[in-house]
This record gives sequence, structure tokens and C-alpha cells, in this order.
Amino acid sequence: MHVFSFFDRSTRAFQRSPSFSKLILLGTISTGGLVAYSESKPDSGSSSGDSSQVEAKKKRVVVLGTGWAGTSFLKNVDCSLYDVQVVSPRNYFAFTPLLPSVTCGKVEARSIVEPVRNIIKKKNGEIQFWQAECVKIDAANKRIHCHSNDSKMVEGKEELLVDYDYLVIAIGAPSNTFDTPGVMENCHFLKEIEDAQEIRRSVIDCFEKASLPNLSDDERKAALHFVIVGGGPTGVEFAAELHDFMSEDVVEIYPTVHDLVKITVIQSGDNILNMYDKRIRSFAKGKFQRNGIEVKTGQRVISVSDKAITTKEKGNGQISSIPYAMVVWSTGIGTHPVVRDFMQQIGQNERRALATDEWLRVKGCDGIYALGDCATIHQRKIMEDILMIFKAADKDKSGTLTVKEFQDVFKDIRMRYPQLEFYLKSKDIRNVVDLLNDSKGNERKESIELDIEGFKSALSRVDSQMKNLPATAQVAAQQGAYLAKCFNDMKKCENNPEGPLRIRESGRHQFQPFRYKHFGQFAPLGGEQAAAELPGEWVSIGHSAQWLWYSVYASKQVSWRTRALVVSDWTRRFVFGRDSSRI
Amino acid sequence: MHVFSFFDRSTRAFQRSPSFSKLILLGTISTGGLVAYSESKPDSGSSSGDSSQVEAKKKRVVVLGTGWAGTSFLKNVDCSLYDVQVVSPRNYFAFTPLLPSVTCGKVEARSIVEPVRNIIKKKNGEIQFWQAECVKIDAANKRIHCHSNDSKMVEGKEELLVDYDYLVIAIGAPSNTFDTPGVMENCHFLKEIEDAQEIRRSVIDCFEKASLPNLSDDERKAALHFVIVGGGPTGVEFAAELHDFMSEDVVEIYPTVHDLVKITVIQSGDNILNMYDKRIRSFAKGKFQRNGIEVKTGQRVISVSDKAITTKEKGNGQISSIPYAMVVWSTGIGTHPVVRDFMQQIGQNERRALATDEWLRVKGCDGIYALGDCATIHQRKIMEDILMIFKAADKDKSGTLTVKEFQDVFKDIRMRYPQLEFYLKSKDIRNVVDLLNDSKGNERKESIELDIEGFKSALSRVDSQMKNLPATAQVAAQQGAYLAKCFNDMKKCENNPEGPLRIRESGRHQFQPFRYKHFGQFAPLGGEQAAAELPGEWVSIGHSAQWLWYSVYASKQVSWRTRALVVSDWTRRFVFGRDSSRI
Repeated sequence: MHVFSFFDRSTRAFQRSPSFSKLILLGTISTGGLVAYSESKPDSGSSSGDSSQVEAKKKRVVVLGTGWAGTSFLKNVDCSLYDVQVVSPRNYFAFTPLLPSVTCGKVEARSIVEPVRNIIKKKNGEIQFWQAECVKIDAANKRIHCHSNDSKMVEGKEELLVDYDYLVIAIGAPSNTFDTPGVMENCHFLKEIEDAQEIRRSVIDCFEKASLPNLSDDERKAALHFVIVGGGPTGVEFAAELHDFMSEDVVEIYPTVHDLVKITVIQSGDNILNMYDKRIRSFAKGKFQRNGIEVKTGQRVISVSDKAITTKEKGNGQISSIPYAMVVWSTGIGTHPVVRDFMQQIGQNERRALATDEWLRVKGCDGIYALGDCATIHQRKIMEDILMIFKAADKDKSGTLTVKEFQDVFKDIRMRYPQLEFYLKSKDIRNVVDLLNDSKGNERKESIELDIEGFKSALSRVDSQMKNLPATAQVAAQQGAYLAKCFNDMKKCENNPEGPLRIRESGRHQFQPFRYKHFGQFAPLGGEQAAAELPGEWVSIGHSAQWLWYSVYASKQVSWRTRALVVSDWTRRFVFGRDSSRI
Repeated sequence: MHVFSFFDRSTRAFQRSPSFSKLILLGTISTGGLVAYSESKPDSGSSSGDSSQVEAKKKRVVVLGTGWAGTSFLKNVDCSLYDVQVVSPRNYFAFTPLLPSVTCGKVEARSIVEPVRNIIKKKNGEIQFWQAECVKIDAANKRIHCHSNDSKMVEGKEELLVDYDYLVIAIGAPSNTFDTPGVMENCHFLKEIEDAQEIRRSVIDCFEKASLPNLSDDERKAALHFVIVGGGPTGVEFAAELHDFMSEDVVEIYPTVHDLVKITVIQSGDNILNMYDKRIRSFAKGKFQRNGIEVKTGQRVISVSDKAITTKEKGNGQISSIPYAMVVWSTGIGTHPVVRDFMQQIGQNERRALATDEWLRVKGCDGIYALGDCATIHQRKIMEDILMIFKAADKDKSGTLTVKEFQDVFKDIRMRYPQLEFYLKSKDIRNVVDLLNDSKGNERKESIELDIEGFKSALSRVDSQMKNLPATAQVAAQQGAYLAKCFNDMKKCENNPEGPLRIRESGRHQFQPFRYKHFGQFAPLGGEQAAAELPGEWVSIGHSAQWLWYSVYASKQVSWRTRALVVSDWTRRFVFGRDSSRI
């Protein structure tokens, strides 16, 4: 959930500004500068919701979750068209990309959360929120079962049952422990606000414990050994935050133990940040080396006891056990219990996440959508449909496809199968003629005409460009905004479908399939340096990237309130350092 | 711990300002205005600590606790003279008078805490801090036994043992449940930062639960019934904070349930705020009535179940049981387990708090001091010593006391027995002649001469003016500063004792006894109105008192950091309202 887009349209609707007088006051108390960039245009995508569209009885849309996907959906959905209810055990939205900053006190936990009811308020209260945990999805009866957070209240009460016409599952996913023994009991995760707060307390505890007079040198060193499992952006950013805390504050607050701190990043692959550009990977590696952060690659954690973490080297199978003070486990995501239960109901047992089609509809269900970390889009292969595509394109039923014929359906094919887009880009193919010529390896012909085998061969390597979307805030937010737009345009697109041609049936799909647009990603590396991967494979590394990070993250805050808080937290840290109170 | 002095000298040493450049920056980010008032004079009371005073081996002073008393001692003690060690499970000082503000989000928890190590840093690191909990005081061996916070670390390790020459017990006191069944399990307290944070979460939970759709009207009302047990300043301020939250924020965030909120204050006495001036009591009563806060006086709580609180009316013994959503228990203070154990060791079993003499020395112990909420000064009665006083004053051994003879010892007697001071003030007696004449009821004589019976009769009503000091921050802070001054002047006063004449022995006491100076007290009553009792029985009620409260509490913050944070929290609340995220 770390990577975040620069100009992600999906958060636009958040930034309805408060009244002008408050802004002036804000200007006085806040730092200015960084707040400058903000998008306040209302979302232009949503339909205006004329009253004629509203039926006597509105359809009930139930949204599970108030994370990136759920909140983005809420912000964008036209609630004059639907009876929208949100169910989540958390009554707030958390700006998760700043969670690593919370762990060592660069930013306060409260500065990155916004109550869902504040977001609802801006929509004139037509959305209802229930603070409750969904425990069961009953697709047969179109109903969900929920428990209130507090056992006291529901004791002896029926569960809360919520009926839906449409269900939007945006419930997220917990950390994946890969069933490694001892991880649940002994490791910290970094998925929720509470996790970050616990890590902060735990870090301070480690320093306090190491300062006690009755420890041997070895015990003192063990008490200051911080281990991060997983070299992804979250793990790496936490390591960087910890190192910054050490070099900027610990050196003054805990001068006697400062030298004994050790930070180790354990990574099963060959590199940290392996989804980033090579230049960034090698800069991160070098920077961590200079900072004394040990990176152990090619190591798999096989168990975590209360005192030591045991790893196995991939190459030679060597097993070693190191004492630690605290472990932060950040190795990817698993499956939410409710989602696992639901997947068993609908026969998706063997998966980590709910499989949806390209319109985010859960496969095999009616009126159920899934987005964000709890879902993956099961993209159709072009080769699965190749015969139908050929048939659909071959208008004159000649058994061969001319350039003209393929050209006519090309836009639809391209919209339906995003891998085609990636393929064209990767091969630098500009038009249909080049695509159809590609397979041959012969000289380029304008008037090429292909039979089915030739057509198959021309497109045979397209599916190799299929990729699963990463489990990031950026993807979740875009999916939420996309789905809201589909809901808003439901009526309109019933009569005028905007999607691509149906290949296996007649007519068009109602909506365009979801298409992810990657706006780049950041990796803060500590010492006021960051790496940024921007669109167009542009890479920026160093202090300028860190300032870009500050600007982007300030501008992307969900409200003026959190924006002011985050910026004032950054300033406070700059003036006073981090707070080391163990609360 | 709520009441706080205006010009309490004890916090002066805190306000060493950060470097000037930081101050300028602070000026830019902070709001200005309220920060204006600050005392930055260093404490003039402490001795300068010439190196000649320092022995080869410094005496070890161990301080238990980092509350008002402990921190005030730390700030004022001259650590060039002693090897000072502090032991506390909390590595921060909390500005407890603002705890009620934290419960509903007017101020953030982190804004009112300051790490002990920051305070130590300003003293050039000559104080050592151990984050550990004292579990046993071993007075015989001059040693304390401590446990580290985290069981993981000390497992299999010896406890931490700390030897002392002087022990300063400033460990505070927990809430007093009077052994009422169910209180520990079902009630919130308001003594620690964690308590305030839990109350905040619980308040939000109540509103969220009451908003759920599957509740009956009665259940909804019960889910919004907030009960405060204890009509002291803390309880009253919490009730006021809750009402403010309700009328300023809940009305917008939870509009559907806003009308159902009920706040009840249960008080065993006849009045809320019964240690305050009559005018304040009646204003508070009227204001709570207007606000719909029910005040039930003359009621004793006899049990608290998980759903209902049962009370007994003092007058007619009628028992009633009311359902509640949450109970905040704020009825005074009890005894810390370690203190109870220690009192058993030294034969003080029957007491709530450690008895000390007027120099804060624990009775019957050598080198052990106790201050703050865990101690009470066992003031000597003047009638206990009346014979010795007579003997000491009767220089010519005539068996009678002349005005001249009594005049000679009067200053010392007055210093030794503070009740004499209160007695003179209450009777408006200006001099010794009036005091000695007082008992007679006859006409006033200048040349009065009294035998022992006459002397006894003249002073017989003095002891009625003895009073225990309240368990407030103001008392604790003054005691800490007083004791630090005694430690600083130890050498000097050994040769030149500054205390009053010893009555039962020859010579003088080494130090003047502790004398409490009351600087007034506040009671914030909500709606930007407060009541203030100032020295000279001056009472201020209303908005102006609230602004005085803001200024005083801003100025009394322990550091520029917390001052900036508290002021910016107040501003933030004014601009954005309170945050209702449940974290």
C-alpha cells in the first residue's frame, strides 16, 4: 500500500475546501509552502444525477471497507441514485502511504486519518455508515452479517443484518505470514494505524530496555537489533525511518546505546525494491550499505521464536538463528477471513484473492463487486478468444482477415484486452499492419491477408504481456473511482453501452473495462533522500525526489485538515525532533 | 491532579528556551498570541554547586516517578552534587490538568507529554533514567527492586536492583474504588494518558453503536448514557468536555442520535465542586442544569455491572439501577501497591498514604522522602508540644511567660506549626499580645504574663486550623521544588541551619519545613466558560476566566514544544472541530 500516484484523479472529489474564513485562519497557523499544490476540481466524470433517473425505490449499495478502494468509491458515487451503506470496523480512512512515517514519530497517527463521517457529510448525508465488522457474506439471500465492535452492546442481540442489491467488497487484506511458525505471535505488521502505533511504542521500549544498567553487552546488542522481513517499499521505508530516527534523535536522547543499534533487512529475492528500476535498486543498496543497514538477500525466514529469528539460505540451505529485539513483517498480503469464507462458497477456494472480471464483478456472482487488495482481475487471454475474435472480425466470412477488417475491430480488441496495449508498446508497434506483419519476420506488406493460423501466430505472444496489478493504494483508488463511475452511468449505459464489442455475443459491453494507469512510485530512503519512478521511465533520486515526495504527499491528503496536520508534523519534527514518549 | 497554580515557581527551570533560530521558526508556525506569557528565569533558589562541595563519591539519590512531584524535583535538583537516578514505568512527564481535554479530542495526548530524557538533556545528562517499575522498597538494605516494562527482556534475568543513599518516593496514587464491586472491571479512570485515550475511543464507540440500525429506542438511549461518578474538578471538567463535544461536533457528525445523549454526574456529597467557593458551586450547578447535565447528589454507588450502575440514596436508602454506556470513575485517590507494601514494612498499615514529617521525610525511615499524591504530611499538633514550647520560651525559668519571652520564640513557632498562621489569619490576630489575650475574653493587656494553663488556653484552638493538603499538581510540584532545594542546600544548612528552633532538643532544624502556597484553581465548565478561584478569594466566572485558563495552561507547559502543540491543538479544534476517528 506504499506506492502512490502523482496525479491520481480518484482523490479529486475529496478536496472540497472548507469555508474561506477558515482557510485564511489556516494560512495563519500553517506553514504555507507545501500546501500550495492542490486539486480542487470536482470530479467531472460522474453523471449529474437528474431527478428523472431516480427511481421510486433506490437500489441498495453496500460497501465493505473504508480503505483506499472503498473511500474512493464513496467519494465518487452519486448517492442521489442509490441508497448507499458503508460497513467497516474502522470509522476512518487512513492515508496508508504515510504509515511508515508514523512508526518513528515523523508524523502523528491522527494526522493521517479522516473520519468517514466527515467524507459522508460533504455528500449531504445520503450515505449511511455502520461501524461494524462483516463476518459473513450470504450471496444467496443478498445479505451480509455483521458484528458491532463491542461485545457488550451486541450480547444477546441479533447480529446486524444488512440487505443489498449491489455489494462492493473493498475489505482489504491482512499481511501474509506464509504460515511461518511464530510470526503471528512475535512479529509486528504494518498495515493498520494500530500497527504503526504499536511499532512506535515498541521501538522506544527497545531503547529504554537497552539503556537499563543490568544488561550484558550481548544482551544490550540484542535489545537493539531491529529486523525487517521483506524488502518491498514498506519494509525499506521503515528501515529508512528507523535509521533516520537513530541518527537524528537517538544519538541525543540515548547517547549511551546509540552505537549498538543494528538494522537488518531480510529479503527472499535477490534485491530489495525488486519492482523498481535498476538505478533505484542499486542506489538503495548503496545507501543502505553506507548507513550500516544490513541487507540479507536470498534468505527465507523459517520460524520466529520470542527471542530469535531463524532463516534458511536459498543457495546452500544453511540455517542460522539471530537474536532480535523486534521484527516487522512486511512480505505481501494474504486473505481476509471473510473473503476466504466467501471464496469457499463460490468455489474460488484455491485463490489468495477474489477473482473478478475486467469490470470488477466477482466471477460467478450476481451484483457483487470486489476491488482493492482483496481482489485480482482475472484478465481474459486473447488466445482463449482468438477464434471468436477472428470470426467477429471476418465480416465477409471469407475465412481470411484483411487489414481493413481487423482495423474495424481493432479499437474494441485493444480496449477489451489491455495486454495488447502493453505488447504494442513493448515492441514499439504503431499500427495494425505492423502487428499483423510482426509474426512473419518477412518484409513488411501493406496488403497482408491472414487465415486463422496466421492470425493466431501474429497475436501468439500478446498474452505474455499480461500482468497482475500490484496491491497498491494507487490501484485501489482508481478501481474505486472507476466502479463509482460505472454505478453513476448505469442507466445511461444500459441504453447506450460504451464498452467494447462483445466477442462471443452480439452487441457491446455496457462499460469500458477497468484500465489501470500507473502514475509512478516513490521509495523514501532516509536522510531526506528518496527515489521516484515517474511516468515515461523517468527516475529521480536524491534530495529533490524527497521534496517531490513531500509536495505530492501533502497535496494528496484527503482533507485540508489532514493536510495541515501532516505539514505541521513535518515542521514540528524539523524544529523539535521526534517525540520519544512511550504512549 | 486537576488544580494548578498560576505562578508556581517550581516549573521555572523548565523553560530554558531552544536556540534562537528555532524560536523564530516556531514563531512562524505557531499561532503567537497565547504563547506570549512565559517565565524563563532560572531557579534562583538552588545553590551554585561549587566544586568544593562535591565529594569524591557523590551520594546516590533515587527518584521513583516522573509525575508532577518527581519531575519538579528533577528540574530543580543540582545534579553536580548527587548521583541522581530516576525510575518510572513512564518515560515521560504528562501535564495531567489537560487530561480531561484529551478525552474528547480538544487536545491530543502527545501534546501534553514531554519525554523525561528531554528534561534530563537540559541538565547535561547527569541524571540517569531507567524505564522500569519499582516493585519493592527494601529500606533495610537501602535498595529498590524493579521490573522492566517488558517481560520478554527480563525473563530469566535478575530483577533490576538499584541502591540508594536517599530515596525520593513520588510514585503517585491510583484511583480509589472504595472496593465497590465491578468498578475495576467496568469503569474508566482518568489518571493516566492511556486512560484519556481509552475514554476517547470509548466515547466514539458509544456514538457509533448508537447509530447502528438494529437498536430499539431504549437501547439507543442506554448506548448514549454517560455517567460520571465523582463531582470533583476532574469529573466536572470531563462532563463539560463531553457536553461541548456533543453540542459542537456530535450534532454534525451524528445528527440522528444527537438528541438521545444523556450525561449524569453522581456525587456522594451535597454539591459538585465542594472544595470551591459557593459562587462557583452555584454557577456550575446552574450551568449544568441549563445544559441538561443531570447532577445526582447524596448518592453512593454500591455496584457497577457490565450494563447498569446501582446507587443508594443517602437520605432514604433507596436503591436504584440505571443502564449506562460508559462510566468514568473519578472519586479521589487510593494507594499504590508498592506504597501499601512499604507501609506494612514500616508499620503504617492503616493509612491511605505515607506519613511524612513537615520536611517530607517518611516517618520512621532513614533517608527516605515521600511527596505528591502518595504522601501526606503528618503535621504536629501544637498542643502535643505545648509543655516543651512553654519551657523553651520561659528563658528565666520563672514558670510564667511574658510577652517579651513568647515574642522571642514566636517566629520559630509560627514557622514550625503552620496551623498557627491559619489561626492568626482566621481570627484576624495581628500580634503576640492579641494572641495571648485572645483566650481570656477580658480587656486587652499589653503586659500579660501567663502560666502554663493560661498559655495552653490561649493556644487551645490553634490546632483546629490544621488541614491536609489537597492531592493536586500544585502541591506536588511545590513539594518537588522544596525538596530539591533542601538537597541542594544540604551542606550549607548542616553548618548554618535555617529551620526553626528545635523545641524538644537544642539547636535548630536544618531546613525550614515545607509550606504550601495556594495560587488558586480553575474549573472549566464548558461552552468556553470557566470558573477561577484566585488568591485573595477573588472569583472569576465566565468567558474571561476561560481565556485566563487558556493563557495560564499555555504558559505552564513544560517545554516550548508542548506549548506550541497545545496551542495549535486548540486552534485546530476551532478551525476543523474535533477528530472523531476511533484510533
